[in-house]
Amino acid sequence: MPELRKDPILDHWVIIAAERGRRPHDFATKREPDTTTNCPFCGGNEDTTPPEIIALSSDLGRRPDTPGWDVRVVPNKFAALAIEGELKRSGIGLFDCMTGIGAHEVVIESPDHSAELPAMPRDHVVKILDTFIQRILDLRSDKRFRHIVVFRNYGSAAGASLSHPHSQIIALPTVPKLVSEKLTAARNHYRHKERCIFCDLIEQELAMPERVVMQNAHFVVLSVFAARFPFEVNIFPLEHQHDFVLMNREQKEALADILCRLLARYEDVLGGPAYNMMIQTVPNMTPRPGHPEYWGTIKYDYHWHIELMPRLTKIAGFEWATGFYINPVSPEQAAASLRGDADEADIAVPA
Amino acid sequence: MPELRKDPILDHWVIIAAERGRRPHDFATKREPDTTTNCPFCGGNEDTTPPEIIALSSDLGRRPDTPGWDVRVVPNKFAALAIEGELKRSGIGLFDCMTGIGAHEVVIESPDHSAELPAMPRDHVVKILDTFIQRILDLRSDKRFRHIVVFRNYGSAAGASLSHPHSQIIALPTVPKLVSEKLTAARNHYRHKERCIFCDLIEQELAMPERVVMQNAHFVVLSVFAARFPFEVNIFPLEHQHDFVLMNREQKEALADILCRLLARYEDVLGGPAYNMMIQTVPNMTPRPGHPEYWGTIKYDYHWHIELMPRLTKIAGFEWATGFYINPVSPEQAAASLRGDADEADIAVPA
Repeated sequence: MPELRKDPILDHWVIIAAERGRRPHDFATKREPDTTTNCPFCGGNEDTTPPEIIALSSDLGRRPDTPGWDVRVVPNKFAALAIEGELKRSGIGLFDCMTGIGAHEVVIESPDHSAELPAMPRDHVVKILDTFIQRILDLRSDKRFRHIVVFRNYGSAAGASLSHPHSQIIALPTVPKLVSEKLTAARNHYRHKERCIFCDLIEQELAMPERVVMQNAHFVVLSVFAARFPFEVNIFPLEHQHDFVLMNREQKEALADILCRLLARYEDVLGGPAYNMMIQTVPNMTPRPGHPEYWGTIKYDYHWHIELMPRLTKIAGFEWATGFYINPVSPEQAAASLRGDADEADIAVPA
Repeated sequence: MPELRKDPILDHWVIIAAERGRRPHDFATKREPDTTTNCPFCGGNEDTTPPEIIALSSDLGRRPDTPGWDVRVVPNKFAALAIEGELKRSGIGLFDCMTGIGAHEVVIESPDHSAELPAMPRDHVVKILDTFIQRILDLRSDKRFRHIVVFRNYGSAAGASLSHPHSQIIALPTVPKLVSEKLTAARNHYRHKERCIFCDLIEQELAMPERVVMQNAHFVVLSVFAARFPFEVNIFPLEHQHDFVLMNREQKEALADILCRLLARYEDVLGGPAYNMMIQTVPNMTPRPGHPEYWGTIKYDYHWHIELMPRLTKIAGFEWATGFYINPVSPEQAAASLRGDADEADIAVPA
């Protein structure tokens, strides 16, 4: 059983998942390269994954764990958290622990190993978004879980160990500190101004559009003002909406469109970089008013968004020591470059 | 001039240093490998670095920027912050900025390119520690700076771009959020208990020594209870001491000894992994009582330490989305393995 441990000084949690572990000398050697033969996520290899949780298929007579699916969700074979068990908290002196209860799922986005998200048909991307929503809703019904995060690691530098197109979903028994900080900032802003801080940010950025990368009827992509990484962007729904699962059909189509166009621009400008993509939506609101994890005005003050960070730079001692990040590309230059209206000579001074 | 920008939601700062930047297509190609010919840090190549700030040399007649030095400090040629200029704060709507004033120095730890820290004579390592202290004290006299961090990136995976043995020093015009959080946690513990939280932690760990890696007369190496990374450790002075610069000669010798022995164990167990090493000491206490950066009881409640993280795992979307880390090696197994008393079969379950 994995274990959650809290740092007594910095108050953040870590997951100690030694079941996933390797022997120490294994770290010295590189992981073998990913091959397209025998990929467990490929159509036809359904028997090499744990039994599927759900699958989207146009074949209504399809049996589970057989070919013929469009999008398929399976438990992560090397899960960081255990789905079975009771959530128990304990402490020894300064230290706090929890049993490592949670869910860790893989969303296999296509049976085709070489499919690339930006080139997928838009209605297939909508199916992937629908799958995320189905899984979030199902996991929220489990009262042990407080927060669900959907993320996509693309490329080895971003932590992906398989190149087959996939995303992951993790359900946690606690609201992470980083998410709590976002929620608290949004709530404080709302208390002062009775406005959503994200709506304010979007309005401010659209009025002075040097960091606007692209836009459609329902979404805007903004180059992050205080970007930690070159070409880091956020995708926001233009209309206030606190929860990812509330998107209507038209919004899903618009999100599929802008996401594919954005990823295609990353390919054009940066040559298909490794990236991490994270969906930031509201936590599960099981606690009652008065509980520190009860977020009363969240419907009005929070605004779901997607974070996307190409992984072009390395994180080193300075970043770990301070939480500061050094970004060698200005967010305005990155936006101009992604829009395609930057003169190459303006983009950066050679090092 | 670089710029400091604050994230309006998460309140952390980033350094936008576009002067260090590369053209976008440069990110697509890998950096050329480090060669030992024409290394700017090697003895004899003093004219290829910016003019030196200080150098330790046994030759009292040595002129600056000539050979004959033991440890040499130069400004970073690709500095993230500018040493010249005035600290100015500004804001646009939700956004806050500061001019990117600070210092960014390189401590060249030996004229010998192939010298490795764990194999250096102990009295040479003491000279390196003395150099850190001299630079911290000098930078603290600059009233524009609020915090100074010394760090060492070893290996490409840890962000090192040159393999010549070196550390770096950055002086910042603000106390980073991460450091403030540590200081606040320490102060709060002291207010409740009138004891240093780090002293309490050391005492608790020594009493139940499953996470004690090694110890000498003045220092202890602890495997971190809530380690974010496999084999992450902290080095603490056993006697309460709030500031790195207060070490006496005997402590410096003991630190040199334990640091070299620890790095040698990393080599034995992990095959010389890339790592980040960070010295965490007190900020510059220029503000007066009442200022949020005035840390009144810091002498009693803070305890300087060194953080050391081998970089064996990758940081992916889950970590970025939540601040949670997944560590596949238990800290107790890591400690046993570094002590050399672990049965290999006990160390980890194969993935």
